[in-house]
Amino acid sequence: MKIACLQTVCGPTDFPQTLDRLRDAAGKAAAEGAELLLAPEMTVGGYPLRYAALGQSAGTADGPQCAAVAEIAREAGIAMAHGWPERDGAHLYNAVRLVDRDGRPLAVYRKAHLYGRAEHELFTPGGTGVVQAFLGGLTVGMLICYDVEFPEAVRAHALAGSDLLLVPTGLMSPWDVVARTIVPARAFESQLYIAYANWSGEHGGLRFCGRTTIAAPDGTVECLGTGPSDADQLLFGEVDRTTLASARRTTTYLRDRRPELYGS
Amino acid sequence: MKIACLQTVCGPTDFPQTLDRLRDAAGKAAAEGAELLLAPEMTVGGYPLRYAALGQSAGTADGPQCAAVAEIAREAGIAMAHGWPERDGAHLYNAVRLVDRDGRPLAVYRKAHLYGRAEHELFTPGGTGVVQAFLGGLTVGMLICYDVEFPEAVRAHALAGSDLLLVPTGLMSPWDVVARTIVPARAFESQLYIAYANWSGEHGGLRFCGRTTIAAPDGTVECLGTGPSDADQLLFGEVDRTTLASARRTTTYLRDRRPELYGS
Repeated sequence: MKIACLQTVCGPTDFPQTLDRLRDAAGKAAAEGAELLLAPEMTVGGYPLRYAALGQSAGTADGPQCAAVAEIAREAGIAMAHGWPERDGAHLYNAVRLVDRDGRPLAVYRKAHLYGRAEHELFTPGGTGVVQAFLGGLTVGMLICYDVEFPEAVRAHALAGSDLLLVPTGLMSPWDVVARTIVPARAFESQLYIAYANWSGEHGGLRFCGRTTIAAPDGTVECLGTGPSDADQLLFGEVDRTTLASARRTTTYLRDRRPELYGS
Repeated sequence: MKIACLQTVCGPTDFPQTLDRLRDAAGKAAAEGAELLLAPEMTVGGYPLRYAALGQSAGTADGPQCAAVAEIAREAGIAMAHGWPERDGAHLYNAVRLVDRDGRPLAVYRKAHLYGRAEHELFTPGGTGVVQAFLGGLTVGMLICYDVEFPEAVRAHALAGSDLLLVPTGLMSPWDVVARTIVPARAFESQLYIAYANWSGEHGGLRFCGRTTIAAPDGTVECLGTGPSDADQLLFGEVDRTTLASARRTTTYLRDRRPELYGS
């Protein structure tokens, strides 16, 4: 399955502008034959986190914000995973929603490991570690940004059978090590694909790293976006079932674990 | 604390030759101011695993083989960690022993995750995940080769307070990804130093990767040995308590874990 990641430039973008960028990326990704488009953390609402933009973009999973993105997926005929501020009663979650190529909802995941003071002030942490859906013959899981830095979170997905992890992120300098080293390590050690789509550019004193990546279970990296730049990038990779099967046959970490020795 | 890793060339080496190489390395490392020397997996006995050499080198932790290495440590005035085939009744373990600069025993660790058919035929897997000792003001833990590829094994050390993990290894081509990506990821994600000392060269159809490394908790790599080569190398790095403290203050993975979400 060919997939695409949108690496997009941060900054003040209102909701209609966000939809325009997504529409453009979805059209291009579908034209290139991609079956799935992943966009960065808080795609809708934007980074850096701003109260006004969050207020304008927050909604329930069946609210108008998500419906507008699902309509883009349907129009372009491509599955999409996008971040957005999910409102649920008194709670606000840092969430990601996956819809299929017909715009039908497949799954919503709420970020479980919040990062930094702003996120802790704004969001309620998610209470479910593993959220999965079935897409294009693959079991697809979702995590958000800081979540993927915890090997336990990815391992839980691997043990639950995830083949591909979609990870919208908002990785900032100087933490390039996460994109360069941690994400490829996670894919190799847990024997699954990871698509990691980041923001780029600089705004409000924050500098986003770019380096969007698709890491494979055999230790290779399918693509790698540039560092901080001022242009949107669309990056493509192939999630290959033969590579998955072959890597898991060769590298038997999941079978060789000894949980009785690891403590909690 | 300055530490040294010996990257040494594989091949048919008898026990007296092994002691000569260790004596040479211990003298040079001590002369450079190192307080600890780490040698590869099965330092005594050698790689590739050969029954005759294992028979000659196998012994108990208080047997003559270990005593001879401890005497080298005492003579050079440097702590040493070395692999050897530990015999215990009917069992043979793939083990590593740490002695202090006076040659006094500090700890023995038995490899818990055996790799490949030869190891499973020869060795009994160790039954203890975390073995630690106190050296130079640091809590020092030990793992062997394949063990360190499991994030859970390193996490257990981090949660038990290890500052420095000594990992003798026998990493073969084409698995350079372990030295290049997995070991630095382990050090960063679990916020400790990892010293990873490998064999080099080619023998008996096996090609050892070299790439001995010392990885730091801030995501940097202190040193990196060459790939497969035909010369022994001594690599140095600094295990710095200030860097440890600063990295742990900045990157709070250990505090931010959510074990209730990870399953077993």
